[in-house]
Amino acid sequence: MALRGGIDLGGTKIQGVVVDAAGEVCGESRHPTPTEGGPHDVALAIAAAAREAAEKASTDTASLAGIGVGSPGDVDATAGTVTSARNLPGWEGKFPLSVALSDELGTPVALGNDVNVATNAELELGAGRPYASFLGVFWGTGVGGGVVLDRKIWLGRASAGEIGHMVVKVDGARCPCGRRGCMEAYAGRGAMEARAREQVEKGAETDLFKIMEKRGRTRLTSGVIARALDKGDPLATALIDRAIKALGAGIASAINLLDLEAVIIGGGLGTRLGQPYADRIAAAMLPHLFFDDRPPEVRVAELGDLGGAIGAALLVEQPARRRRAVAAG
Amino acid sequence: MALRGGIDLGGTKIQGVVVDAAGEVCGESRHPTPTEGGPHDVALAIAAAAREAAEKASTDTASLAGIGVGSPGDVDATAGTVTSARNLPGWEGKFPLSVALSDELGTPVALGNDVNVATNAELELGAGRPYASFLGVFWGTGVGGGVVLDRKIWLGRASAGEIGHMVVKVDGARCPCGRRGCMEAYAGRGAMEARAREQVEKGAETDLFKIMEKRGRTRLTSGVIARALDKGDPLATALIDRAIKALGAGIASAINLLDLEAVIIGGGLGTRLGQPYADRIAAAMLPHLFFDDRPPEVRVAELGDLGGAIGAALLVEQPARRRRAVAAG
Repeated sequence: MALRGGIDLGGTKIQGVVVDAAGEVCGESRHPTPTEGGPHDVALAIAAAAREAAEKASTDTASLAGIGVGSPGDVDATAGTVTSARNLPGWEGKFPLSVALSDELGTPVALGNDVNVATNAELELGAGRPYASFLGVFWGTGVGGGVVLDRKIWLGRASAGEIGHMVVKVDGARCPCGRRGCMEAYAGRGAMEARAREQVEKGAETDLFKIMEKRGRTRLTSGVIARALDKGDPLATALIDRAIKALGAGIASAINLLDLEAVIIGGGLGTRLGQPYADRIAAAMLPHLFFDDRPPEVRVAELGDLGGAIGAALLVEQPARRRRAVAAG
Repeated sequence: MALRGGIDLGGTKIQGVVVDAAGEVCGESRHPTPTEGGPHDVALAIAAAAREAAEKASTDTASLAGIGVGSPGDVDATAGTVTSARNLPGWEGKFPLSVALSDELGTPVALGNDVNVATNAELELGAGRPYASFLGVFWGTGVGGGVVLDRKIWLGRASAGEIGHMVVKVDGARCPCGRRGCMEAYAGRGAMEARAREQVEKGAETDLFKIMEKRGRTRLTSGVIARALDKGDPLATALIDRAIKALGAGIASAINLLDLEAVIIGGGLGTRLGQPYADRIAAAMLPHLFFDDRPPEVRVAELGDLGGAIGAALLVEQPARRRRAVAAG
């Protein structure tokens, strides 16, 4: 079977991979997401990331079986379009990303929702392999979710998995989405950063912004937060404690509703903070679990930062495997 | 096809029905649930309710294809046992309800979880018929839930649907389950009654308890609450407003997670208060729905008070229909 390409299109970076038939990474690349221009500029940056990943895998994009792209925004996989990807520059309208990229790269391009492809990667190749049902929680700038039931991703009418906007506190904190009391209002990296800036204005002491500047960053990245936690920074500690409490309540609510086998914590913060913090989330769930004598397992995503791109590569049709399945049937 | 019997075993009453092949009710009965004794006494009361419903349908229990029982507590349908049904007298341990009843009534007895059988009744015969996916919300003494996905009830590891214990307010009100901030802590009839008694002790004015006594009740039943609301009673109004706000947040959370087509509101309060209050719940969901341009439909359960008993009857194996399916296959 031919190699497949995968792109995780994020608000900050474009992660590219090329994987073999087993899903093993043979080449990877990481480019910054353009902060100006429009969808066409983003498409060119994706193409550059895809070419570099192919080169690292000693091939070229036209020789790949195809390339999958995990995208934010409203993804229409059939039409090959992405609409209102609000974290990307000038992307309010609908853009035919699939055609633009396949023209540029000479190979078929498949699209999927970023969170769903990352969940699917954990299901097929990562921490989700042992479970029939689990909840993927992608703890990063926002908090995204993927619901796996009977080893399939549940989409509902199209857009299931908005776990970040489950309500953990009626009349609570304002969320970046504009609503009140969402889990993401407490646990999202974006919301935490906004709160950190407010607290500093009110005189809170913290090294968070010093660490940020020292690293040449303009945002409180997961790495910046992790470093501050390591140093026992009081504001970073308070923000993460607050986030974990909200995650515990929201994820426990999802488990009370669906009684799933496991929870898999990924995303920038989830991956960076690792299993000790997944264990803290598990402990924060416990007071809210209706059946607390058999809590679900809580594990860190195994594919880490590359999960989104690897999952995107899995979107590419696998003609060899399909043919085998038909022959066996 | 022979007639089937169904029993809804509640903490207050035992509702019995006999239904025909189309699920139409041919006979019904309603007996109070024993408040003393143990599982054997409850079984005798169930048997009496089943006999009376059969008589009303001009038959006897031994002539039925079988009887289904929807029970609270931990139901093991395969073993035919019910364990720790805490609303029923002396029912902490495991009791072989299936055998006890079939010996007494001369017909096979099938068991199911009370909320799931009521959800299944709405799915097969009630307000759930048009939808591939919906959430059943049984708003009564507690708040139970049934999750229907692709026209099947989702059970998870065994016990999905505990929507009443989704967290709507971290560190919030104490729930009858002992935890804090559950939806049921605000919306359950039991929790509302406890709060009403507290508020009266603090000097709140209300006719709730006068209406209760006038009707010869010892609890604030759904009927008592509905009457007080009709009269504009300020405490009843405040309690229901608080309940609806919590229901809106909790149900919206479930929809954000699962993106279901519809919500069906049943249970004692849901059925009694009807569509105007279902519409109020829909309005209370709106500020929390992530995709608020396409909210799910919110409908009152169609089978009303009898839904649990009718759903229990659907547990009875349908040999005639099965044979036809096999012949067609």
